[in-house]
Amino acid sequence: MTYRVDEAAALLERTPRVLREWFAGLPEEWIRESEGPGTWNAYDVVGHLIHGERTDWIPRAEIILSKGEPQRFTPFDRDAMFAASAGKSLGELLDTFATLRAASVARLRAFALTDADLDRRGIHPEFGPVTLRQHLATWVAHDLTHIAQIARVMAKRYGADVGPWKAYLSVLK
Amino acid sequence: MTYRVDEAAALLERTPRVLREWFAGLPEEWIRESEGPGTWNAYDVVGHLIHGERTDWIPRAEIILSKGEPQRFTPFDRDAMFAASAGKSLGELLDTFATLRAASVARLRAFALTDADLDRRGIHPEFGPVTLRQHLATWVAHDLTHIAQIARVMAKRYGADVGPWKAYLSVLK
Repeated sequence: MTYRVDEAAALLERTPRVLREWFAGLPEEWIRESEGPGTWNAYDVVGHLIHGERTDWIPRAEIILSKGEPQRFTPFDRDAMFAASAGKSLGELLDTFATLRAASVARLRAFALTDADLDRRGIHPEFGPVTLRQHLATWVAHDLTHIAQIARVMAKRYGADVGPWKAYLSVLK
Repeated sequence: MTYRVDEAAALLERTPRVLREWFAGLPEEWIRESEGPGTWNAYDVVGHLIHGERTDWIPRAEIILSKGEPQRFTPFDRDAMFAASAGKSLGELLDTFATLRAASVARLRAFALTDADLDRRGIHPEFGPVTLRQHLATWVAHDLTHIAQIARVMAKRYGADVGPWKAYLSVLK
């Protein structure tokens, strides 16, 4: 296994800053671009990341670290951000995400996790037993999958405009 | 066609800031992670983007906009950054990219391109005739393809650690 808290925290704490530099003040066309009905745009993704800070990453880590037998997680609501983000500006969501993420990463570091802690388990509603290491590695990969998703969604806006270069741009495939 | 200079410039000018927030001070493990021999890591990508500013995006646009018959582009050297980046820190490369990109975007805006300009052509060494619109739309999609690439490469570092979540993380597929 490769996961280490220090390198994971370094990447996690950067995500709000990356998204702020990318999205703040960007023309609405880019922010609202999606891959069609039922798919997410950049605004939706920030709301989804906020919901993860509130209900998934640290809360589930705390469930895993609680004493006694492995406990079952509450299922994650993938649509919760649609109601939670309603009426909020992208700038407000970026601020909220930055505040929550900073607190989450501080908490992660404060756990001072041992290898034995990383092997502790919780019960995922779908997967069954999962380790804290798997959960925390997923937190990092989940940030990265959404960064890649947004880059892909935005690139598709020019999918026709690029003409013959389409063959060389992996993000358009 | 969707391409517009103003919205394209807004995204292009953000890329150096996004990469700086992401990479500056990040543990070396993330920066040097690649997908194996012959593939690029984050450091290589910044060098590649620098080479594009110097030899591709604005230089080819100027060839297309020059008077007379469409002219042939000089082939782009995909390996040039290995020599050009040698001995330079990632911080130096990020600074160089930021400086070059700012100048490129200023030049793009100063062209004050008309639709007729965007329909002008150059001769790509492989594709044959390409329009300025295609070339400039590719500049944007090219930034995004490399952002997605880096997110994918970094996520793969934890490809085994995430356990059963792998099935849900599109970036790991």
